[in-house]
Amino acid sequence: MLAHTAYGKSKVRLVQVARHGDRHDLRDFTVAIQFEGDYDDSYTAGDNSGVLPTDTMKNTVYALAGRGPIDGPEPFALELCRHFLDRNARLERVRVHVTEHGWDRIANGARQHGQAFVRQGSGTRSATATSDRESTVLEAGLADLVILKSSQSAFSGYMRDEYTSLPETRDRILATSLTATWRYRAGEIAFGPAWWAVRGTLLETFAGHESESVQHTMYAMGRAVMDGCGEVARIHLVMPNRHHLPVDLTPFGLENRNEVFVPTEEPHGLIEATLER
Amino acid sequence: MLAHTAYGKSKVRLVQVARHGDRHDLRDFTVAIQFEGDYDDSYTAGDNSGVLPTDTMKNTVYALAGRGPIDGPEPFALELCRHFLDRNARLERVRVHVTEHGWDRIANGARQHGQAFVRQGSGTRSATATSDRESTVLEAGLADLVILKSSQSAFSGYMRDEYTSLPETRDRILATSLTATWRYRAGEIAFGPAWWAVRGTLLETFAGHESESVQHTMYAMGRAVMDGCGEVARIHLVMPNRHHLPVDLTPFGLENRNEVFVPTEEPHGLIEATLER
Amino acid sequence: MLAHTAYGKSKVRLVQVARHGDRHDLRDFTVAIQFEGDYDDSYTAGDNSGVLPTDTMKNTVYALAGRGPIDGPEPFALELCRHFLDRNARLERVRVHVTEHGWDRIANGARQHGQAFVRQGSGTRSATATSDRESTVLEAGLADLVILKSSQSAFSGYMRDEYTSLPETRDRILATSLTATWRYRAGEIAFGPAWWAVRGTLLETFAGHESESVQHTMYAMGRAVMDGCGEVARIHLVMPNRHHLPVDLTPFGLENRNEVFVPTEEPHGLIEATLER
Amino acid sequence: MLAHTAYGKSKVRLVQVARHGDRHDLRDFTVAIQFEGDYDDSYTAGDNSGVLPTDTMKNTVYALAGRGPIDGPEPFALELCRHFLDRNARLERVRVHVTEHGWDRIANGARQHGQAFVRQGSGTRSATATSDRESTVLEAGLADLVILKSSQSAFSGYMRDEYTSLPETRDRILATSLTATWRYRAGEIAFGPAWWAVRGTLLETFAGHESESVQHTMYAMGRAVMDGCGEVARIHLVMPNRHHLPVDLTPFGLENRNEVFVPTEEPHGLIEATLER
Repeated sequence: MLAHTAYGKSKVRLVQVARHGDRHDLRDFTVAIQFEGDYDDSYTAGDNSGVLPTDTMKNTVYALAGRGPIDGPEPFALELCRHFLDRNARLERVRVHVTEHGWDRIANGARQHGQAFVRQGSGTRSATATSDRESTVLEAGLADLVILKSSQSAFSGYMRDEYTSLPETRDRILATSLTATWRYRAGEIAFGPAWWAVRGTLLETFAGHESESVQHTMYAMGRAVMDGCGEVARIHLVMPNRHHLPVDLTPFGLENRNEVFVPTEEPHGLIEATLER
Repeated sequence: MLAHTAYGKSKVRLVQVARHGDRHDLRDFTVAIQFEGDYDDSYTAGDNSGVLPTDTMKNTVYALAGRGPIDGPEPFALELCRHFLDRNARLERVRVHVTEHGWDRIANGARQHGQAFVRQGSGTRSATATSDRESTVLEAGLADLVILKSSQSAFSGYMRDEYTSLPETRDRILATSLTATWRYRAGEIAFGPAWWAVRGTLLETFAGHESESVQHTMYAMGRAVMDGCGEVARIHLVMPNRHHLPVDLTPFGLENRNEVFVPTEEPHGLIEATLER
Repeated sequence: MLAHTAYGKSKVRLVQVARHGDRHDLRDFTVAIQFEGDYDDSYTAGDNSGVLPTDTMKNTVYALAGRGPIDGPEPFALELCRHFLDRNARLERVRVHVTEHGWDRIANGARQHGQAFVRQGSGTRSATATSDRESTVLEAGLADLVILKSSQSAFSGYMRDEYTSLPETRDRILATSLTATWRYRAGEIAFGPAWWAVRGTLLETFAGHESESVQHTMYAMGRAVMDGCGEVARIHLVMPNRHHLPVDLTPFGLENRNEVFVPTEEPHGLIEATLER
Repeated sequence: MLAHTAYGKSKVRLVQVARHGDRHDLRDFTVAIQFEGDYDDSYTAGDNSGVLPTDTMKNTVYALAGRGPIDGPEPFALELCRHFLDRNARLERVRVHVTEHGWDRIANGARQHGQAFVRQGSGTRSATATSDRESTVLEAGLADLVILKSSQSAFSGYMRDEYTSLPETRDRILATSLTATWRYRAGEIAFGPAWWAVRGTLLETFAGHESESVQHTMYAMGRAVMDGCGEVARIHLVMPNRHHLPVDLTPFGLENRNEVFVPTEEPHGLIEATLER
């Protein structure tokens, strides 16, 4: 009767300071670990003898971080996967998800402080490693990056039925909270530069696109990554449509010049696409 | 290159008042709709001619609610699925998720007010209908029901490695925020009574179980539903372990009597299981 | 130049289990402590010699809880105040705020489980004690209790200017998230029964009132407490207006019967009043 | 019996686009308005004849924004105050609070896109205008700016009692979510440059200070503003202590090198100070 099980630890918070003289590097991670395997006895019989406690999973995050500077979310996710697979014979599939919260250095006049930081804006970086002993899949990603364009965005020519009341527009605000995850092709990847290249390509394409819809711009963004970032094999994009409703000012004796908007959070459109080579 | 797409509307809020004399019934829903189908042109070419706007999806929720009293999240999710499939030739698969926020009547002395309500406690009710024209799957559920037991909960006898520091215990607090989703067997289901029966079975089993772990109690809860609620064909349970850490009072000159705890939210264990007939 | 200072500890989480045979009582508190006094040196000179660490404040919460069962948020707030004043000569004014998160017992057939609980609905209970060695003020309260009435609520006859577009209505939904804080008259108070009496009076009055506005109902609620709860000397009420906008169904070929609403969270009205004897 | 009243509208969301050729400026505000005055009749008698609906307050925000580009939160808050005082004879005191959510331009190669934006990092800008017809007080501010320093932070030499268990440290992480509000001296103020000067001074002082405690650094930050920003007459600072607890790695066979930390959100210290000339 037990068709599937999984257990693990979520929201393990870790800050690591790497000291290079008077310049410190900061890593700020939230880690989630999930085990699947031969753990049915713990469910059906209350037999914990093969169960690695989730508290130990948490300790492992800190112990591995204690060995030395972490080089990014991707190698840390991969290292945690390997560690758990090596020591847990019952473990068949492990998934490690790492979210990185970015920090910028505080300005020190024209230079930067080496040891003082301000939390970056919207958007986090992520890596997910999933391994089943046969093979390992790594996904890089960014989440919740809030972006907006105030021109080159239209929505018109759509299907209508008796419940359609939305006015067509050739000039609207397009805003979203972008989440993207992607897989790399086989081979050595410089994870940091690759991540920044994908992020830059997504942002520039969003900014420059003549948009007919969220779908249209999403595809252009994914396509630009596939065209410009050769290491990427597959990308999944999720873009809620954070509607900005134009306010009708005519009841107040004013002209509508498409300048005053109400940003709303609910309801929202939700658009997804996956592009593959 | 476009491997998969989906689009829809989320967080459509709806309150419906059904007036039966001086007794009103209240339905408070959050609806999410997702379309999959022949919409690639909207992505690749910016051609919206086959795209039903997500704004129309939202209007449809209100228009269907405007026809008369809704009888629960399950029939409303099914009705929305049918409606969209009937009118959208390009639509291949539609999913409608309805969350119901419960309200209790305010007491009026020993009776109840007919038209005044107080928001129920933790836990929402949900229904998800997914249809691909061939077949329709309905899932009922409850989410985020916060429960705790202060006895009959142990965690001991687990695997240890060099990073294990957790003390074993035969008497701990077990707390979680329960989410469960289940499918019914074929045939007519009285959705309301069935939902309350599943909820009651889950709660009573949680309360009465001699727990060796979250996994152990989760299985007992799922098993009790399978045994006691004949309509249920399959149930999926998710239970974060909301750790309550005992405070060591000995540094303060006090004895530890297992009475003082720090409830924590991060990190947390996360346990899942699916039971099927 | 230092005109005012304060420091303390917030979000101290505490769960206390009191075991009475097979019936357990549960207290679930979030505590905030604030000190004001002769602490300028710690600011201006970095001299910590008179500073009780906020970590010690936190430990004190647990140590006092370790002595035995807490009898409610009011006596615990008062006890913490006294404790800190007795031991900190520099302390001139201390404020302790306790929020209680309620739990109901899980049903056990027609009876109740003694050791298993489900988190209560919306609304928390609170107590704030403020003491300056001369005198102590205690405030009891409830926060964020979400209530709604679907009849006996109007809003009409209001002032209009050129920016007024709101239609008048004699039948609307009135919903709010009630927060109330009150002070008791001098003398012995049975805090638990008094709190429940105030809560009951607020809810019944909300439910039964013929409302011309949030303001109107708020006053009736406060007035009913002053009339019916003799121990209360003063009450402060805050009620955001959680607007439920009627959906215009006529574009969809349906009649508007005042049954379909969109609940919104922003913007919201925000209404306050204080009543005193 | 009615000792005090207030009513208004909160969470009015406004985005304004000002088009200067192909360069757009974006203002993203959340506005809250509060009225105090001769409104007792609306409470006690349900007489709305003198009540400006909060819906009209909301419309007024949009109508004033519709007249032309807003020059910042300060002049907009002041303009709204004047508008409401001029037209509402019963209004005795009005407070308008404006929060600005910042957006940066998306990079366009080495230049910047004129019409595409990414939401700024942590921290918002605010202005509060309060006017009682006699005088107007304006407060500028920043809120929730998350900052951290990984050196030059100690906490030692503090008072101890029997509940003190915190180890002293000469090297810890200091992190906070800074909120500051300040008043300007009389005279013309260039609000934008003044705000950036205060923000810069706060950040640089935080970064460079040899900290003996949050209190010590807070005072240095406020003092630096008073010394360096001549327009500021008074500043109020609030800094929660976002504790970063060092992980003890010795049970895992590793040395503690003060590099691995658990960031926590609850409980947290909460430190405040006001500096005045």
